[in-house]
Amino acid sequence: MAGNTKGVLFRLTTFGESHGLALGGVIDGCPPGLQLDGDFIQKELNRRKATGFPWETERKEKDEVEFLSGVLKGKTTGTPIGFLIRNKDTKPEDYSALKSIYRPSHADYSYKKKYGLRDHRGGGRASARETSIRVVAGAIAKLYLKRTGIDIMGWVYRIGDLQMKQDEKIPDPESISSSPLNCPSHDLSKRMISLLEKVKAEGDSVGGAIRAVISGVPAGLGEPVFDKLEADLAKAMLSIGGARGFEIGSGFEGSNMKGSYYNDAFVKNGEKVRTLTNHDGGIQGGISNGMNIAFNVAFKPAATIGKKQKTINLEEQPVEFSGKGRHDICYVPRAVVVVENMSALVLMDHLLRNRAMH
Amino acid sequence: MAGNTKGVLFRLTTFGESHGLALGGVIDGCPPGLQLDGDFIQKELNRRKATGFPWETERKEKDEVEFLSGVLKGKTTGTPIGFLIRNKDTKPEDYSALKSIYRPSHADYSYKKKYGLRDHRGGGRASARETSIRVVAGAIAKLYLKRTGIDIMGWVYRIGDLQMKQDEKIPDPESISSSPLNCPSHDLSKRMISLLEKVKAEGDSVGGAIRAVISGVPAGLGEPVFDKLEADLAKAMLSIGGARGFEIGSGFEGSNMKGSYYNDAFVKNGEKVRTLTNHDGGIQGGISNGMNIAFNVAFKPAATIGKKQKTINLEEQPVEFSGKGRHDICYVPRAVVVVENMSALVLMDHLLRNRAMH
Amino acid sequence: MAGNTKGVLFRLTTFGESHGLALGGVIDGCPPGLQLDGDFIQKELNRRKATGFPWETERKEKDEVEFLSGVLKGKTTGTPIGFLIRNKDTKPEDYSALKSIYRPSHADYSYKKKYGLRDHRGGGRASARETSIRVVAGAIAKLYLKRTGIDIMGWVYRIGDLQMKQDEKIPDPESISSSPLNCPSHDLSKRMISLLEKVKAEGDSVGGAIRAVISGVPAGLGEPVFDKLEADLAKAMLSIGGARGFEIGSGFEGSNMKGSYYNDAFVKNGEKVRTLTNHDGGIQGGISNGMNIAFNVAFKPAATIGKKQKTINLEEQPVEFSGKGRHDICYVPRAVVVVENMSALVLMDHLLRNRAMH
Amino acid sequence: MAGNTKGVLFRLTTFGESHGLALGGVIDGCPPGLQLDGDFIQKELNRRKATGFPWETERKEKDEVEFLSGVLKGKTTGTPIGFLIRNKDTKPEDYSALKSIYRPSHADYSYKKKYGLRDHRGGGRASARETSIRVVAGAIAKLYLKRTGIDIMGWVYRIGDLQMKQDEKIPDPESISSSPLNCPSHDLSKRMISLLEKVKAEGDSVGGAIRAVISGVPAGLGEPVFDKLEADLAKAMLSIGGARGFEIGSGFEGSNMKGSYYNDAFVKNGEKVRTLTNHDGGIQGGISNGMNIAFNVAFKPAATIGKKQKTINLEEQPVEFSGKGRHDICYVPRAVVVVENMSALVLMDHLLRNRAMH
Repeated sequence: MAGNTKGVLFRLTTFGESHGLALGGVIDGCPPGLQLDGDFIQKELNRRKATGFPWETERKEKDEVEFLSGVLKGKTTGTPIGFLIRNKDTKPEDYSALKSIYRPSHADYSYKKKYGLRDHRGGGRASARETSIRVVAGAIAKLYLKRTGIDIMGWVYRIGDLQMKQDEKIPDPESISSSPLNCPSHDLSKRMISLLEKVKAEGDSVGGAIRAVISGVPAGLGEPVFDKLEADLAKAMLSIGGARGFEIGSGFEGSNMKGSYYNDAFVKNGEKVRTLTNHDGGIQGGISNGMNIAFNVAFKPAATIGKKQKTINLEEQPVEFSGKGRHDICYVPRAVVVVENMSALVLMDHLLRNRAMH
Repeated sequence: MAGNTKGVLFRLTTFGESHGLALGGVIDGCPPGLQLDGDFIQKELNRRKATGFPWETERKEKDEVEFLSGVLKGKTTGTPIGFLIRNKDTKPEDYSALKSIYRPSHADYSYKKKYGLRDHRGGGRASARETSIRVVAGAIAKLYLKRTGIDIMGWVYRIGDLQMKQDEKIPDPESISSSPLNCPSHDLSKRMISLLEKVKAEGDSVGGAIRAVISGVPAGLGEPVFDKLEADLAKAMLSIGGARGFEIGSGFEGSNMKGSYYNDAFVKNGEKVRTLTNHDGGIQGGISNGMNIAFNVAFKPAATIGKKQKTINLEEQPVEFSGKGRHDICYVPRAVVVVENMSALVLMDHLLRNRAMH
Repeated sequence: MAGNTKGVLFRLTTFGESHGLALGGVIDGCPPGLQLDGDFIQKELNRRKATGFPWETERKEKDEVEFLSGVLKGKTTGTPIGFLIRNKDTKPEDYSALKSIYRPSHADYSYKKKYGLRDHRGGGRASARETSIRVVAGAIAKLYLKRTGIDIMGWVYRIGDLQMKQDEKIPDPESISSSPLNCPSHDLSKRMISLLEKVKAEGDSVGGAIRAVISGVPAGLGEPVFDKLEADLAKAMLSIGGARGFEIGSGFEGSNMKGSYYNDAFVKNGEKVRTLTNHDGGIQGGISNGMNIAFNVAFKPAATIGKKQKTINLEEQPVEFSGKGRHDICYVPRAVVVVENMSALVLMDHLLRNRAMH
Repeated sequence: MAGNTKGVLFRLTTFGESHGLALGGVIDGCPPGLQLDGDFIQKELNRRKATGFPWETERKEKDEVEFLSGVLKGKTTGTPIGFLIRNKDTKPEDYSALKSIYRPSHADYSYKKKYGLRDHRGGGRASARETSIRVVAGAIAKLYLKRTGIDIMGWVYRIGDLQMKQDEKIPDPESISSSPLNCPSHDLSKRMISLLEKVKAEGDSVGGAIRAVISGVPAGLGEPVFDKLEADLAKAMLSIGGARGFEIGSGFEGSNMKGSYYNDAFVKNGEKVRTLTNHDGGIQGGISNGMNIAFNVAFKPAATIGKKQKTINLEEQPVEFSGKGRHDICYVPRAVVVVENMSALVLMDHLLRNRAMH
């Protein structure tokens, strides 16, 4: 269990490094008969790609998926789905200078300590490029979930110190996709762009946060006591490179509240049981209650910056360096689809796990 | 994989309900030859027990562990350690009124929807009483970790809106254990007690938050990409009843920072490599870097309150009710040892997983 | 993953030693709403018990199960089922002589080498007494399987060199249970008893073999390529102490056959598809095909014998010794229910795994 | 857990169908720093390939492996090793006739029943071609095991009714590799070839059996009670297509023996503890004891034969057909390397699992 497999029944195993030949994945446990909509999968991948905005890396990858197995005449067969994304635009020479140093807040030092060696080219396995494979698998999960009525939507609610007001209203999808930063408030979006330009000019980087809402979830998903639904969501989110925090429902703010205010009262609403508020974020006792599942994820600033920084080299002597390779000023907008699709993997897995019980 | 087992190599499986005959656990994968210090284990359990403070439940359980296997002459044998805690002070009749309603922000409704039936007596499996088993297993992990130099310490840093200033200083252990609320700031502790008394008088409840620091962790623990160390910590924390948020290092606040400020510069300090700051919270790329691992966990207010609340009954008709059973006004101080010992389970598991690689 | 948990979705974790306080188990993943028929479970346990036959151990254990959780008003709740069997008739002093030697063909030496220490009392964890827990869990699986029409029946077809003719006819259950050796051929049964008396008089032991047939299995169970149904059955059988061989369908003999003779031709039989022969034993490509699943398991002779044997002591010096503790001359008749109930665990697990897919 | 992953710590996940674009695998948990000897891996693959013998399929595949990740400068990095074998010599049109029928003793019917659809081209996922990926992964495990002194050797000991005498002598490796049937007795090898020619002329097929010996295994590998070493070997063997039986040590024959004859007496032999006989096959109580691990695997005759057979079509009406595609008369000689390399996967996994404990 070296950590490259996710899920119990809908299982994704991934491999590949930033500057190796290819990244790839195997999905084991996808139910048979699912129509694999290639356009949708490619669109999801495109949402993750850098597309020329000034705050994005200049590395240009087409991110074309090649499906190798588990699909016949466009439908899943129930056997494992193997797939590849070839690396095309690699410049390993950009990284030769990094071979001999441990970059601050990167994974260079910890990988070296763990494995005794490391692939220094573009972060190797620790590169965010690895998330492209998660996006493909999550897109397939989304296709299945959609059929059962489950929908997942994420957006940027903060970049640096610019933050949207949090309310329970779910934004219009169009307002998200039409923002280059995946932020539904277009006013804020503009100010965020100015911020990013300024940060870029300074040779710096900046973090941010993403909010996601999962709607249409039936009551009953989640496996107490250790595999509570929010626990698996938290793990999935914190497994994304750069993620530093997770909160569900009212989260950290809810810990300030009194029970009489916080508690979500049940009411009958037509045919459906619902709660008047949703401070619990749609999960109670680790099991979905049929309300929207809503959570936030915090991301640290990109570790690579243009500014000069101090660090040590492999001989553990002090050195100075500044980031030269292609990198993002702020990767948070590109992480929205990763957050969504990691959620899809978790939901899909719990849907199958719950089904086995009945 | 119905969710009652935790860990890959150091595995805890738990069972038991709040008002059943007993709760219990099985630890599989504990290395042989570990001296099981019964006093220490009991002390850890005592830290979780209600001990007569006015904000605590009146249920009094001795929480005595009976070890049934895996131990010979006080030492672990490498075979599974089975153990029990009998429930003694049960009052199932207190809960008969609850049989027919779904309490707000409890697990009543979601359990019913998942399983088709539920044990209504004291929350059944969803009761926080289940965490006593986690404390026993975590205490055993702590005994092992201590031998390798790893130490874990948690404390309450917020109750309601009363919050300690966050800094990197680790409090004196004595300052924590001498506070009835496990809060190292005794000034704040006093104000928190006043708050709790007020909340109790109102028939209400209140949440809070816990900070934990793990010291002495060698570089190299954690299994990218899905089983990153912070991902497994997040999952462990969110699996505790009532937990609603997790952040590591600078967490949500760090997402406001710029890279030049956030990045943790490596320096050589005598023989040891360390970082000047620790915004990453001791984990980079999912792997420990040898610095302290520091994180926060947010807890929602206790769901049971004395105040009258609206909800629905099993026939989904509106009803009013108020909590009568024995319950905590604020369970956060009692959760400190749970946070610590869940961390111990995670660290222990990753210690063994990492060892297998080399 | 220290090996004391079995199953993916219907999971049994066991603990306990032969001369410890108790043995026990936790079943996680049992569907809710199953009526736990205590009489049936006890009857299954009784089938495993020594009941005074001269070829059986003199140790007398009542094997009473105490269910601690996961059951409410006689029905499973979907939460983990914890249960215990206390050891009552222990005589650890019988084994003090064994403390210092490695008995031939026992687990003494290999346990010592693995764990650095061992529980010498009655074989500790390696004792066949451990299988009582498997019988309880398997009995619960049987109760569930029975509702879906799946039935499992095993019998002794060989003791020493006395062997029943193998044919495809399934014996009458009554013919099995009325034989003290669980052998449906009563003629052979008598000759086997004479053999056992002779072997006992010689201070020796003898092995044997068991055949099991699972009927009513729907087509579709089994998870290629590694978790083929016969692969999981083989593992389950070889995990029983003393098991040395497994063959499904025509097994070793089938490897002599030509394809034209061996191949099982499909025919339509009324509404049902079946095969004219069943050399494949009901499993093709790792997946059940709806025919009876039939297999054999070989068991070595009991390792403890009265005759004097040579071996070495803990100092690795040669010694002589002869078995004194209470032991079976032939444990194979008592293993029939273990074979059946381990099969039940495998079938149950695959039933749930298959269900998740659809 | 849909069955396409093997192992706990050294984990192989495979994908791919006989007539799809490619087969592939991901090894997760390979220790870093292992020199990947490409020549050795290719040689192992060549041992599985059909190479023009008249009893082999006429399909010619180069079986060239492309390593995509986890390797830097020829050494493993500790990150997952992804690899591919492209299918080149596919003739899906050969199988169009099979689209509408269920072939006897193939996986056609059971796959259809499980998944609702199937890939009829060359057996799809159920094809023996899938084992090429196991050979690659097992070859990597062998490279690692070799460094620790563990060696695995298999050979054909039976084809049809022609069988070698079983003794404890391990054959000379050269005598195996120089036989076109991997049978160390060259006299028998010749008679086997005559048999195969005759069987081919008849349009029939024939089964056989393989013996394997693992030497150099340290005492201590294996995880009782469910993951006993022989249990995991049995599962690995029965997961190979066509395998129908497994026996370890004296196996089925040992079940005829008396304890006084069977028991393996310990002796000190120079510095090393060994046993005088090895009826237990090197494993006691589920844990290796340092002696050679020896076992047999039985294989059924190839299901595809030229002779006319009766079966049913998808409409479940009776039809006749005869095998036309390219197929083996006897695949057992080609399965020797699969048996060896599946053993390597099991040993490697247990080596790492055992290491974690200490």
